[in-house]
Amino acid sequence: MLTQEAIYHVPKDEYCYALDSTTIRVTIRVRRTELKSGKILLTDRYAHERFMPPTVSYDLRLAGNDKLFDYWFADLTIESRRPKYLFQLFDGSDDNWFSEEGLTDVRPEMSWFEFPYIAEADVIRHPEWFQEAIFYQIGVDRFFNGDKENDPPGVLPWGEAPTMTTFFGGDLDGIIEKLDYLTELGINALYLNPIFLAPSTFKYDTADYYQIDPQFGGNPAFDRLLGACHERGIRVVLDAVFNHAGLLFEPFRSVIEHGPRSAYYDWFYIREWPLEMEEPKQSYDTFSFTARMPKLRHEHPDVRRYLLSVAAYWTRKGIDGWRLDVANEIDHAFWREFRQVVRGINSEAFILGEVWLDGTTWLQGDQFDSITNYRFRSAVLDFFAYGKIGVSQFDEKLFSARIRYRAQTNLVMFNLIGSHDVPRILDLCDDSAQRVKLATAFMFAYPGIPMIYYGDEVAMKGGDFVQARHCMVWEPERQNREMLELYRSCTRWRREYAPLVEGEYRKLFADDALAVYGFARELPGEAVWAFFHNAPGEAVIRVEAPEGLSFVNIATGETVQSGDGGLEVKLDAFGFTLFYTKTSGGNQ
Amino acid sequence: MLTQEAIYHVPKDEYCYALDSTTIRVTIRVRRTELKSGKILLTDRYAHERFMPPTVSYDLRLAGNDKLFDYWFADLTIESRRPKYLFQLFDGSDDNWFSEEGLTDVRPEMSWFEFPYIAEADVIRHPEWFQEAIFYQIGVDRFFNGDKENDPPGVLPWGEAPTMTTFFGGDLDGIIEKLDYLTELGINALYLNPIFLAPSTFKYDTADYYQIDPQFGGNPAFDRLLGACHERGIRVVLDAVFNHAGLLFEPFRSVIEHGPRSAYYDWFYIREWPLEMEEPKQSYDTFSFTARMPKLRHEHPDVRRYLLSVAAYWTRKGIDGWRLDVANEIDHAFWREFRQVVRGINSEAFILGEVWLDGTTWLQGDQFDSITNYRFRSAVLDFFAYGKIGVSQFDEKLFSARIRYRAQTNLVMFNLIGSHDVPRILDLCDDSAQRVKLATAFMFAYPGIPMIYYGDEVAMKGGDFVQARHCMVWEPERQNREMLELYRSCTRWRREYAPLVEGEYRKLFADDALAVYGFARELPGEAVWAFFHNAPGEAVIRVEAPEGLSFVNIATGETVQSGDGGLEVKLDAFGFTLFYTKTSGGNQ
Repeated sequence: MLTQEAIYHVPKDEYCYALDSTTIRVTIRVRRTELKSGKILLTDRYAHERFMPPTVSYDLRLAGNDKLFDYWFADLTIESRRPKYLFQLFDGSDDNWFSEEGLTDVRPEMSWFEFPYIAEADVIRHPEWFQEAIFYQIGVDRFFNGDKENDPPGVLPWGEAPTMTTFFGGDLDGIIEKLDYLTELGINALYLNPIFLAPSTFKYDTADYYQIDPQFGGNPAFDRLLGACHERGIRVVLDAVFNHAGLLFEPFRSVIEHGPRSAYYDWFYIREWPLEMEEPKQSYDTFSFTARMPKLRHEHPDVRRYLLSVAAYWTRKGIDGWRLDVANEIDHAFWREFRQVVRGINSEAFILGEVWLDGTTWLQGDQFDSITNYRFRSAVLDFFAYGKIGVSQFDEKLFSARIRYRAQTNLVMFNLIGSHDVPRILDLCDDSAQRVKLATAFMFAYPGIPMIYYGDEVAMKGGDFVQARHCMVWEPERQNREMLELYRSCTRWRREYAPLVEGEYRKLFADDALAVYGFARELPGEAVWAFFHNAPGEAVIRVEAPEGLSFVNIATGETVQSGDGGLEVKLDAFGFTLFYTKTSGGNQ
Repeated sequence: MLTQEAIYHVPKDEYCYALDSTTIRVTIRVRRTELKSGKILLTDRYAHERFMPPTVSYDLRLAGNDKLFDYWFADLTIESRRPKYLFQLFDGSDDNWFSEEGLTDVRPEMSWFEFPYIAEADVIRHPEWFQEAIFYQIGVDRFFNGDKENDPPGVLPWGEAPTMTTFFGGDLDGIIEKLDYLTELGINALYLNPIFLAPSTFKYDTADYYQIDPQFGGNPAFDRLLGACHERGIRVVLDAVFNHAGLLFEPFRSVIEHGPRSAYYDWFYIREWPLEMEEPKQSYDTFSFTARMPKLRHEHPDVRRYLLSVAAYWTRKGIDGWRLDVANEIDHAFWREFRQVVRGINSEAFILGEVWLDGTTWLQGDQFDSITNYRFRSAVLDFFAYGKIGVSQFDEKLFSARIRYRAQTNLVMFNLIGSHDVPRILDLCDDSAQRVKLATAFMFAYPGIPMIYYGDEVAMKGGDFVQARHCMVWEPERQNREMLELYRSCTRWRREYAPLVEGEYRKLFADDALAVYGFARELPGEAVWAFFHNAPGEAVIRVEAPEGLSFVNIATGETVQSGDGGLEVKLDAFGFTLFYTKTSGGNQ
C-alpha cells in the first residue's frame, strides 16, 4: 500500500521541467521504500478520438532519498512538445495510478498530468564556461600588496591579526602580480569582494558605484587587471552590493544633510529625520541592523534606473558576471530587469545570487544562473569536518540540496567550503589537513562549480569570519605545500575529465559502518567513479560493476579491473580515490 | 501523532506570500483532522544575541480542506519585512515543532523558515476595476447584425442551426446597438472573441493582426465601439491569438509559396516543404492537430517583436486588456515581455490567460493577472448541474481551486459557467432553469470576476460547443425573462454590496444530508452570507451566528435576527438566499 498523503507531484517546478526542447524530466515523491517500481505513460495532450498518437511507457528510476521520501524520475521525450502523462506505481503487490485525481486503483483516462508545452525559450541552457569554471575568491585588501603607493593611511604590517577595521594594503596590481600563481593553481575565474569606493576594508558600504577604490588602484588598475586576466583566459566576476549603500553614498549624504528636502529622500526607507544612527534604533532601514548600510528603496524607479546603469556600465567594461550581495532581499522584478540588461550586453555573463537557503524562486531561468551553495557546505561540514552525520545522512543532505534544482542548475551551483563570511575549513576540521583534503576533493568531484576561498589552498587558518580574512600567506615555508598540490591536482582533474564537469550524478555506494561514500559522474561512453572514506584505518569495499571493465586511478595512473564480484576499492584513512572509466553505451 | 510525511510547507509560492508590504500569509498542510490547533512564532531573520527583537505568536486558523489534507494559515505582520518563523503544532496531546528540519518534539532554535524579504515590487496588487468587473463574452458573428452592408456572402438567416463554418452577419455595430441592453443587464466589461481579419467565423486563424475583419465592420467600427463602450464605463478586452496564425497570414503564405527561401520560413516550425497539409500528418507544427492554425515560433526574435508590436498597437488604441488564447503553449519569457509592453502603455490593462488547468506558473505577478477558471466551472457543474458530488466534495473542489492561488488572485479569477468552447449551462443542467439560476447566483456570490457567456442570461440552449455558438435570441417571447431578471439582480448585488467584490471567503455551512452549502464574504464591519440548497423540497438550517445580529435578505429586503441558537435560514427547492449584515469589529 502506498501512503497517498506522502505522494507528491506537480507538473511544474523541479518536479517537471525541460532538459531540452523535446525532453522533460518528471519526478515523483513517495514515502521511503514503499514504491518497488513504476512507469510513466506518455502521450500528446491533444490525443483524442480523431487523432490518437501512441502512448509510450518509460520506467521510473530511483533518483535518491531524503529522510522521509524516495524520489523517482524519468526523462520523457516527445516531438510534439505537449506531454501528457500518467504514473503507474507498483507497491510490490498491486499497480496504482497517480494523476491529477490523486491515487486510484483504476487507470484514469481523463486526469493525466499535463506539461502544457516545452517552450524553447524557457529551457535553461548555460554557456559552457559556467560549468567549466573553477572560481577563486579574493578579498582584495588581504591578497597581495602590489603597489605601496596606494596604501591607505595606517596600513598594518602584512600578516598581523586583522580586525574588521584594519587595512593591509592589498590591491588589484597585487592580483596581477600573482596571476602566474593563480594560473598554476588552475583556476579560471576570479570572484572579487567589492572593489568600488567605500570607507570600510571589505567595502560592502559603497560610496561610489562608478569608482574602483583608489586604495585598490582605482579604475586604471582595474582595466589592467581585467586585461591581464582575459589574456590568460581568467574570467572576472564582481560583487554587486545593490541591496544597500554606505553612509558616504552621495544620495544618502544628501538625506543626512537635507532630510525631506533632499531629492534622494525616497531612495531609502527613512522613518524619521534628523536621522537616529544608533543600532538597532536607527531611524532608517538597513542591511541587518548595520547602521552604516542604509537599505536602498528598490521600488523607486530612479533607484532601479541608477543600479541598472551601474550594472550596464561595468558589464560593458567587459566583466564576466556579477555576484549579487544579499540578493534575496531585493525584489524579483528588479532581478528580472537586471538579467535583461546584463545579458543584453554580454549573453555569457554569469549571474550568481548570494542566497544561503532555498534558491528556487530565483533559478527559474529569468533571474539568476546560480546561487552560493551553502547547503552543500553544510552537508560537507557535518560529514567531513564535524563527523556529526554518517554516510546515509550525508547522502540525504546532498540529495535534498540537489533535488530542488534542475539538472542544468546543479551543474553550475556555486559550491564552496569557505568564504569571507564563515570560519576557515581548516579550523572547522580541527586542524586536520587530511580531512580538509578529503572535503576539497569531494567538492571538485561533485556536480557544480568549485570555489576556492583564497588561502584555503595553502591551508590557512581562521577560526571566525574576521580571522578568516587574514592576509594571504605567501612564504612557502608557511604554506602547506601538500595542500597546494592537492588543489592543483583537483583543478587539473576537472580540466582533463569531462565527466567531472558535465556528468550526471549517480550514487554508487553508501555504507555507514564502513564510512565510505561513492558516486559516479556519467556521460555517454565515459564516467568518473569517486570514493571517499571518512574514517581512520583502511577500508576495502566492493562496488557493483560490469565484469572486466577497466578503471584508471586518476591520481596514480594505475589501472584496475572489475571482477565477477564488481570493483574492489581500497581506501586509506580519510582517503579518496577517483577512477576514470570508459563505459559502453549510454549514460547509465 | 501528526503524520510527518503529510505535512507540507515551503516559505514561498502559495504557502507563503505577501498580502501587503509588511504582511505575509503563511499556510501549512497537514493530514485531515490531525491538527487540533497551532501557532506560528515570528521574529526578524537577523535576530541574534546582540539584537533580539521580540518573538510574536499567531494562532493558526483552518482555511479549509481537500480530500486528504487540512490547510491552516495565519497572516503575519512584521515591520522589518524580514520574517523568520516556526510552526508550533498541537495534535491533541503534544506540541510538535515544524521547521526546515522537519517535525521535531524539541523546539529548534536554528532552522526556522525564512521569507527573505517582503519586497513592495513583488506584492500583487490589482487595479480596482479588475475586482469590480462583470464580464460579458461575445462571439461577434452571433450576437447582433447591426450593419447588413458588411455581411459576408452566404450569410444564413439569423437563428438557423450553426455549423463551424456558417456565417450570420453579426458585427461590431450590432454590439453598439445593444449597449443599452448590456447596460441594463449590468455588465461593465466585454470580452470579444477574435475580431482580427481571418477567414473563419470564429477567427482563431488570423490573417492580419492589424485589421479588424471587414465583416465585423473593420477598424472604423471598432473605434466606434470602443468609444461607445468607454462612454458608458464598459471596458473592452480583446482576444490575442498569439500561439498560432492562420493559413492566410502573410508570412505563412510566403512560406507556402517560397519555402526555405522565404524570409519567414523560421517564423514557423516547418518540418518539410512543400507543405503537407493533411491532418494529422501536416509537415508543420499547429495548434492541436488543426492544419489551418500554424504555430508561431516564439523563440524567433522577429516573431516576438511582431507580436509585441501588435499588442502595443491595440493597447495604445485604448483597449482595456487582453485575453490570451492558448496562453500556456507560449513561453513564459514571452509573456513577461508582453506584460512589460502592455502595462507600460496602460498600467490598468487586464491580462487574462486562457489556462484550463493549474495557472500558478503564470500568476506570480510577472505574467498574467488572471486565468479562465475552468476548475471553478468543473466544481459548479459536478454539484449543481450533474448532482455528481455532495456538499462536502463541492467544498473540497472549490477549496482546491482556491488554495493554490494568492488571496489577491482569487478575487480576480475569471469565473465562468459557459464559454464558446463548452456546451451551454442550460443543457448541462438538463434544461432545468432553476438549477442554472442556482449556479449563476453562486458564481456571482463567489470570489472572482463573474463572466456571462452571451445568451446564458436568457437561457439559451446549446448542447455542444458548436450549438453553444448559436445566434443570440432577441425576441422577448423566446427569452427566459425570469432568467434575465436573475442576472440583472446578480449584477446589481455585486455593485451594491462591497463584500461580494472584495470580501474574504469563509465557509459557514456544509451539510451533505441537507444539501445546503453556505459561505460568508467578509469585510471589516460588514459581510454577505450566502446559502445554496441543491435539492428539491424546502430546507431549514441553523447557522452559528452571534445572537441579535440583523440580516437583510438581499433579494426581498426582509430583515431577520439571529437568536440564541444562531441564524435560521429557510431555503426553497434549489433555492438560494443572500443576506447582508453589519458585523462589529474585524473581518472574522
